[in-house]
Amino acid sequence: MRRGRTVFFENAPRIAAAATVAGPKECAGIVGAYTDVPLGDDMFGEDTFERAERKMLLTAVKKSLEKARLREEEVDFFLSGDLLNQIISASFTARETGLPFLGIYSACSTMSEGLLLGGMLLDGGYAEHVVTATGSHFSSAERQYRYPLELGTTRPPQAQWTVTGAGSFVLSRTGEGPALTCGTCGKVTDFGVSDVNNMGAAMAPAAADTLLTHFADTGRSPDRYDLILTGDLGALGSRLLKDLLWEKGADISANHVDCGEIVYKIVEDEFQGGSGAGCSAVVLGSYIYDLLQKSGQLGSVLFAATGALLSTVSSGQGETIPCISHAVAIERVPRQTRKKASAPQRKEQP
Amino acid sequence: MRRGRTVFFENAPRIAAAATVAGPKECAGIVGAYTDVPLGDDMFGEDTFERAERKMLLTAVKKSLEKARLREEEVDFFLSGDLLNQIISASFTARETGLPFLGIYSACSTMSEGLLLGGMLLDGGYAEHVVTATGSHFSSAERQYRYPLELGTTRPPQAQWTVTGAGSFVLSRTGEGPALTCGTCGKVTDFGVSDVNNMGAAMAPAAADTLLTHFADTGRSPDRYDLILTGDLGALGSRLLKDLLWEKGADISANHVDCGEIVYKIVEDEFQGGSGAGCSAVVLGSYIYDLLQKSGQLGSVLFAATGALLSTVSSGQGETIPCISHAVAIERVPRQTRKKASAPQRKEQP
Repeated sequence: MRRGRTVFFENAPRIAAAATVAGPKECAGIVGAYTDVPLGDDMFGEDTFERAERKMLLTAVKKSLEKARLREEEVDFFLSGDLLNQIISASFTARETGLPFLGIYSACSTMSEGLLLGGMLLDGGYAEHVVTATGSHFSSAERQYRYPLELGTTRPPQAQWTVTGAGSFVLSRTGEGPALTCGTCGKVTDFGVSDVNNMGAAMAPAAADTLLTHFADTGRSPDRYDLILTGDLGALGSRLLKDLLWEKGADISANHVDCGEIVYKIVEDEFQGGSGAGCSAVVLGSYIYDLLQKSGQLGSVLFAATGALLSTVSSGQGETIPCISHAVAIERVPRQTRKKASAPQRKEQP
Repeated sequence: MRRGRTVFFENAPRIAAAATVAGPKECAGIVGAYTDVPLGDDMFGEDTFERAERKMLLTAVKKSLEKARLREEEVDFFLSGDLLNQIISASFTARETGLPFLGIYSACSTMSEGLLLGGMLLDGGYAEHVVTATGSHFSSAERQYRYPLELGTTRPPQAQWTVTGAGSFVLSRTGEGPALTCGTCGKVTDFGVSDVNNMGAAMAPAAADTLLTHFADTGRSPDRYDLILTGDLGALGSRLLKDLLWEKGADISANHVDCGEIVYKIVEDEFQGGSGAGCSAVVLGSYIYDLLQKSGQLGSVLFAATGALLSTVSSGQGETIPCISHAVAIERVPRQTRKKASAPQRKEQP
């Protein structure tokens, strides 16, 4: 079922389990108390940053399967991608686990692309269990996208900090756990920002476009959700998003939080918060998932991770930054009222 | 519907149109007479190889929509990826067209991942029309993955030549055209090959695994298909695949062709044929699609593109090459017998 760019999951596939791994800087913040594998050392016992990133992703995937009490052979699809060139963290994780693998890439919105696609594959009856995961590592991202760490380059105040962490979600066609009820596919939005240190400003219009489309397609207003959780806009980008939506008549000031804004204890004169594919994966998979599972705390979350689809080559060739955001609604749905998750009836429309 | 790693498309989504763009070296071969946009100059009027690659992909997408008589607003999902870091060709094409975009990455098997995912999204009722496309460019790939072209590095005889070209497919939930009837998701296979100039040998075991799984899941034997079309194993890789399957009791010697093997007029002492995401996309979208559409020439094709999921960083850090292959069955199915495409009945099993 679809309306506009939004698909509705009539069978409400469940998030059977979530697991996260987070680095030391991350564990000093809000996710520290909720993450499954807190790391004391961001090398995770490996000899390169890339291998550490891969091990985090693999660990998160294995942990999530363990929590869902599933064997690898029971998983029908593994949807994963990451920020490294040719998504090697995901590919090597697929090799180590032997899961049937579909590589995805949506930069820092990879987590919501995975949930959106996974939702369709389960809801459509093509899978019983799907694992979707992503992650990032500050040091592997920094040296791939920006400068060698050894240079000690000064970071401008509008910069964000790539999260060292990984999150994995086991989605199941039936069972318990928060349900995926609908999702909105993003379009690429490019407002001409070319500053690779100002991703929040570049990505805010993409998030605004997807959220407005979601509200229009579903007939839902922003206050339909207990929480509207964006990916990694950071402090500046979050303010831009609120302003952009306010101008279009949608007020999210009361129930909007950005993963990048809350993952660290930020001082805005220094930096704007977290970013990276791991940012929203870790925050959603630890702190937020905990609130969703605990009755009464959060009943519904609209999760809209945001991604900047640039490369060093495109930036070097003078291109601006194309951005995207995919949104997925995650709601506590009792078994008996599952059908409420279907396409809205005409009377519900504005 | 699924069995093992194979999903069955009960509604048999159609390939409503295919369009390709191919470079001068490619047009000297078999695809020259069938490609929609043959290029006399592989720069395509652009000033960088990357921009030329992007323009090929965009041109193929637009041409395929034109052939399917569809407007961009009618497309529900654009599934695309390419070989460049952060799949920028696909992302920028998504920006230029404004299509709802889900980025995918499976190296040179991106085309079959796109068809497999697109098949599920259409068959499951989440879309009316999906566009899936990929491409590659010899010069952008060479300088990203291997050496600067200016070095004039000698190529070993087991090397393949990255195809300069792009292919785009419009998939529709109903209508005419060859149908997608089922598809098998690949697993990552790694036989310890670390020579980045010998991709065919690295990828052959992945293709063998997927084809054997497909035959087992569907109960079909290799001779069920008029053609088993692999992606870009090249001449050497193709022989390896035939041998690997022969050892397991599956004989594909009579009806197997490899896109990489047929795309150029190859001399094996010099190189093994074509590779790159564009290789299978161009061959399938031009020559093979023509044979599928013309009654009586080809009734059924099992398309299994193959991908090597390495990066320069993973190779530099001493890793071997993880490979994957996804397979999709494309068949001429008359409207009235659509239901034949569903999961096989018990009596059909071996």
